[in-house]
Amino acid sequence: MRDTYGDAVTLTLFGESHGAAIGAVIEGVAAGTPVREDFLASQMEKRAARTKLSTARREPDKVRFLSGVKDGFATGTAIALTIENTNTRSGDYAKTANLARPGHADFTAQAKYRGFQDARGGGHFSGRLTAPVVAAGAIFLDMLAAKGVCVATHLAQCGGVSDAPFSEDPAELRRQMAALNAAEGPLAVLDAERGEEMRRAIEAAASEGDSVGGVLETVVTGLPAGLGEPFFTSVESKLAALLFSMPAVKGVEFGAGFGFASLRGSEANDAFIPRAGRIATATNRNGGVNGGITNGMPLVMRTAVKPTPSIYKAQNTVDLETGEPAVLRLEGRHDPCILPRARVVQDSLAAFGLVDLCAVALGVRWQEDPIWSTV
Amino acid sequence: MRDTYGDAVTLTLFGESHGAAIGAVIEGVAAGTPVREDFLASQMEKRAARTKLSTARREPDKVRFLSGVKDGFATGTAIALTIENTNTRSGDYAKTANLARPGHADFTAQAKYRGFQDARGGGHFSGRLTAPVVAAGAIFLDMLAAKGVCVATHLAQCGGVSDAPFSEDPAELRRQMAALNAAEGPLAVLDAERGEEMRRAIEAAASEGDSVGGVLETVVTGLPAGLGEPFFTSVESKLAALLFSMPAVKGVEFGAGFGFASLRGSEANDAFIPRAGRIATATNRNGGVNGGITNGMPLVMRTAVKPTPSIYKAQNTVDLETGEPAVLRLEGRHDPCILPRARVVQDSLAAFGLVDLCAVALGVRWQEDPIWSTV
Amino acid sequence: MRDTYGDAVTLTLFGESHGAAIGAVIEGVAAGTPVREDFLASQMEKRAARTKLSTARREPDKVRFLSGVKDGFATGTAIALTIENTNTRSGDYAKTANLARPGHADFTAQAKYRGFQDARGGGHFSGRLTAPVVAAGAIFLDMLAAKGVCVATHLAQCGGVSDAPFSEDPAELRRQMAALNAAEGPLAVLDAERGEEMRRAIEAAASEGDSVGGVLETVVTGLPAGLGEPFFTSVESKLAALLFSMPAVKGVEFGAGFGFASLRGSEANDAFIPRAGRIATATNRNGGVNGGITNGMPLVMRTAVKPTPSIYKAQNTVDLETGEPAVLRLEGRHDPCILPRARVVQDSLAAFGLVDLCAVALGVRWQEDPIWSTV
Amino acid sequence: MRDTYGDAVTLTLFGESHGAAIGAVIEGVAAGTPVREDFLASQMEKRAARTKLSTARREPDKVRFLSGVKDGFATGTAIALTIENTNTRSGDYAKTANLARPGHADFTAQAKYRGFQDARGGGHFSGRLTAPVVAAGAIFLDMLAAKGVCVATHLAQCGGVSDAPFSEDPAELRRQMAALNAAEGPLAVLDAERGEEMRRAIEAAASEGDSVGGVLETVVTGLPAGLGEPFFTSVESKLAALLFSMPAVKGVEFGAGFGFASLRGSEANDAFIPRAGRIATATNRNGGVNGGITNGMPLVMRTAVKPTPSIYKAQNTVDLETGEPAVLRLEGRHDPCILPRARVVQDSLAAFGLVDLCAVALGVRWQEDPIWSTV
Repeated sequence: MRDTYGDAVTLTLFGESHGAAIGAVIEGVAAGTPVREDFLASQMEKRAARTKLSTARREPDKVRFLSGVKDGFATGTAIALTIENTNTRSGDYAKTANLARPGHADFTAQAKYRGFQDARGGGHFSGRLTAPVVAAGAIFLDMLAAKGVCVATHLAQCGGVSDAPFSEDPAELRRQMAALNAAEGPLAVLDAERGEEMRRAIEAAASEGDSVGGVLETVVTGLPAGLGEPFFTSVESKLAALLFSMPAVKGVEFGAGFGFASLRGSEANDAFIPRAGRIATATNRNGGVNGGITNGMPLVMRTAVKPTPSIYKAQNTVDLETGEPAVLRLEGRHDPCILPRARVVQDSLAAFGLVDLCAVALGVRWQEDPIWSTV
Repeated sequence: MRDTYGDAVTLTLFGESHGAAIGAVIEGVAAGTPVREDFLASQMEKRAARTKLSTARREPDKVRFLSGVKDGFATGTAIALTIENTNTRSGDYAKTANLARPGHADFTAQAKYRGFQDARGGGHFSGRLTAPVVAAGAIFLDMLAAKGVCVATHLAQCGGVSDAPFSEDPAELRRQMAALNAAEGPLAVLDAERGEEMRRAIEAAASEGDSVGGVLETVVTGLPAGLGEPFFTSVESKLAALLFSMPAVKGVEFGAGFGFASLRGSEANDAFIPRAGRIATATNRNGGVNGGITNGMPLVMRTAVKPTPSIYKAQNTVDLETGEPAVLRLEGRHDPCILPRARVVQDSLAAFGLVDLCAVALGVRWQEDPIWSTV
Repeated sequence: MRDTYGDAVTLTLFGESHGAAIGAVIEGVAAGTPVREDFLASQMEKRAARTKLSTARREPDKVRFLSGVKDGFATGTAIALTIENTNTRSGDYAKTANLARPGHADFTAQAKYRGFQDARGGGHFSGRLTAPVVAAGAIFLDMLAAKGVCVATHLAQCGGVSDAPFSEDPAELRRQMAALNAAEGPLAVLDAERGEEMRRAIEAAASEGDSVGGVLETVVTGLPAGLGEPFFTSVESKLAALLFSMPAVKGVEFGAGFGFASLRGSEANDAFIPRAGRIATATNRNGGVNGGITNGMPLVMRTAVKPTPSIYKAQNTVDLETGEPAVLRLEGRHDPCILPRARVVQDSLAAFGLVDLCAVALGVRWQEDPIWSTV
Repeated sequence: MRDTYGDAVTLTLFGESHGAAIGAVIEGVAAGTPVREDFLASQMEKRAARTKLSTARREPDKVRFLSGVKDGFATGTAIALTIENTNTRSGDYAKTANLARPGHADFTAQAKYRGFQDARGGGHFSGRLTAPVVAAGAIFLDMLAAKGVCVATHLAQCGGVSDAPFSEDPAELRRQMAALNAAEGPLAVLDAERGEEMRRAIEAAASEGDSVGGVLETVVTGLPAGLGEPFFTSVESKLAALLFSMPAVKGVEFGAGFGFASLRGSEANDAFIPRAGRIATATNRNGGVNGGITNGMPLVMRTAVKPTPSIYKAQNTVDLETGEPAVLRLEGRHDPCILPRARVVQDSLAAFGLVDLCAVALGVRWQEDPIWSTV
């Protein structure tokens, strides 16, 4: 029953969609780390993604820091942040309370919590719990940026449409990443036309009371080589554990990922080459990771995001109280595609994992600046 | 620097390929759990996979228990097991010691350990470290089997050839799983003819001094609904973290996985149906997991395994000492495909993750049988 | 930087004395566990200990549950509780802000957090952080009580006065424990006359602008034998770690504790005897623990609580900004003795540690009641 | 069931007294850390303490590194060390196998492990498990020494005799600590005459078939201020958890410890004073820790060590198989006093806790020397 993750830096989530508030506790952020509340607010905006595509439900996510932040800097103690649940309409969910929604966790939550769970609006399983993740993520992204590490995510695939790929040229890649992170519109893509096709595909599905999924691709630049550990604390292990925590993610791959299955070794290996006094690779099919450890090339990961389970079409299901078959017809407000909003969640989770990896990778080191030590 | 994983049950790995010995420490196994050394030996045999396909290197992996097991039962204290490194030929690696092998961790280990690592034979990154994983896995697989949970893995894809799929009929599925686990031959497949095609593809690549990869698919039956936690301790998060710890795994997916990207919600959702007094789903695209928690349907996961990086073709690389370009021509004994041997490693890791999930899912419960309590 | 403790059940604290709110997140409480808010309120009352002895500062500690509790039962997900900081007077602390208060953490916090800490009122180091501990403790005490385990604490020593000891007769012990837990007055003692002497000693010190310390003794009955692990997760290790987390605790002992130093083995050992069909010991110098594991006899532990560092007498110190000597004269509201209020904190921490021990001791066990499992 | 402790650096113990081997796995030691096998051997010598006082049992503890050390330096991966159990005489224990030895863990182990435990020689509870602790401790002590941190322990009390105290003069203290660590004789004391009295007291008890206990006092110098965290990861919490893991420790105190119970605040507080450009305290009753964090003054801790439970006098007990009363008369080889040997164990555990505290205290910091990073 652990909603906590991390070794040196930990993140604990709490809250139910229709409970009093949701939030998170972040431990391990060093005293003096800047906490920019305006950047945090802009990240929350990206998550809210107010467009015609998203649901009409307005979620004014105002983040309140209860502890750990003073005058814009982390105090070094636990940072607790909460978001009150104010704009909910329980009525939307009442009519279907006993029916197990296909693709959702109603049934499994019942199996696990025996009826004690707060099931309204999906309860603890609601995508709403990604809000504190994004709030915390803002702090982690800033910590990385301060060290020259950049993170950006685009919708590599959505509704059957593929976006253009990230560039292999470092300068062009930087430009693409900056554009993604500055993007106002909800569809974070590299090619605007593909974005338009995606929009049409999403709307087409929505008009049929259906939903679509896709693939989110994240790239991280500026990492030094040497982060991560072989085996259980490998870069892939840590990041995958975090990425799979997102509701709706059913696949994670790095570099060529499942594409490796069709390659020969000679096609898969990345040759090492000297570049500007350092070591790089000629290609990057390994996505920046060798043996679970970063090699300094851009870190590339992708998640498979399934279509939103909540659709308006009639679905066969079972009544959890009686065990009898039933037909579910959802009402209320449901997103036909969560990718536009999920991309900033993925940025946040990746940032968290990388900050934790940086700390773990340090090993045991002495405090370099023993202030106030005495004779 | 943590080679330890798990919450209630933990597994700690140690060892370098050419060091004195490799091994593992397993904590959390309840007193009285049977430890069948013959089953353990047969699992080690599967890992050795002595066929014409594998390398000529014979690894007589004899497992020695240093603690925690007495008269065939776990004592309840830490179980330490070791495997001596006896059949190694350091000479095989000496000639190329300074060159970073593409696809391997030579460069990243140098970045991380600054030259202090034991690099012979891949050191701590060697696939050899999967030997103690398989030894420990035998204990975990037995614990699951005692509760009616079965695990089986086949080569879903290898060298461009696809195996037949697992059956959706429970009885046929059981038969397929039993056949896989009993299989003598190195290629664990459901369709013998496909197996033959795979063999030819592997040999074709080997004859060209190259290698191939593929996809391993694991199915688990008999799990109750309710295991796992939402978010960070979800079934996918835990199992993915373990699966990605295997050398060469670059992708993990559950159920339809990356296939979800092309589906509509109406095609992706699994309808709930009553079946034999319980609740099941009509389809199983979610691979047995909803909201990070098991729903009782077969758990289905797949890993993308990249082609063995060690190939005999000449490769461009860099000399780690001088930073200058160089050409690498490997000699020695290298596997053209690791999938035949990796499948039992995947079984073992999956078993470990599931045993740990069962424990975590228990929550806080009183010791049901307070023996020897006093007045 | 970890304010989290526990293995199966974890408790995370956050908050600064003069920040927005303080609170805690509790993970691992099983779904369906009752949460009695009236009992919780009475425990908070005991901590507030409104008597002439305590400070005039009124702390209306109203606990608010943000998540994890619904209709009086735990949902099985993370329980977050907060307590707003409403009745504070920052002015009390402003005048001495730069001076390191002897016995307090002003200097060490400056060394650790480099000035980024929220130092008002002691910040994160304030005894106020014991409020969420007591709130969480109420849940843990109830969980133990439901299984027949009782916890009680008295002021064994205070201001140089010793209380009567706990009885060795089980029935009398039960009566004493019930009386302690029902006690209205702030001084939880077994002998009312000794309590009066203590009161006079506290007031004598207070009238001189000074403070006193003492010893808190906790006894736990009803535990089964077999809880705890040898070495690092021994009963003493876990409970001591928790007891030492209380501000002002500088010593912890079990059973005869430091008294053992003067005993011979023949005087120290507890002989085993049969009693009512079970096994007990004739004496209990080992305080209910052998080899780090409970033996079923009453668990007995004591903490040494130092005198409140905040006294009104002038004290020599240093100005943290200038490094120059200075004289500190505290004003404001300070407790001459924290033992009356600390005893319920000790109950709470002991309860937390025992609940966690019970869970860890279970080992790996199958979920006994696989509800909703499917074919 | 966790024999593992630590956050950044972890130590896992395994082994039974009469099993194949005992050992430990240490994770988190940075690559390049020197591992001096001669110092390790001298520490093992201290633990063996071959004198007339100790038992005749000769334990040739030869430590073998299975992994993690190469050419005298840590590789950065897990360090596994083992010690074979070669010099045991199972016969010594056979006659009393069913009888619960008072003060020992026979009964509690039976309650916990239901008969599956390896009980010979005390099994996993044997003091023998301190051997790998001392081996690991040698590495930690060296790591601390490299940073100017010194650890030393003396027998503050033994058999009713008190040693001279540690000096408050820094130069004299350093001399005393060096003498303790260089001491050849088994009784690590500051005053040789007191040591002789102790020797006579131990022999007097031994001649009567009895045993004695005492108090071990450890002082640590050279620590910077700022280590440790408030509450659960306080210096006292971490070190106490480790010290209480030693067999026979029943009390831990810091600074004045239980002596605080009799002091007024004005007598207990340590005034801050400037000293040589830094901040120190005029007295050190708080033992170098304020609010759970080091303040730079010498860290002072004491453990209460109970008399060896194994005595030759007849003792009343119960037969674990029949539940009937019985009389126990031990034979074999038993130490009349474990303090001479335990002091190096206490050094080792303290060193381990401090190394872990140093790492945790670092917070999240970037890898200062990004070697091999690429463009």
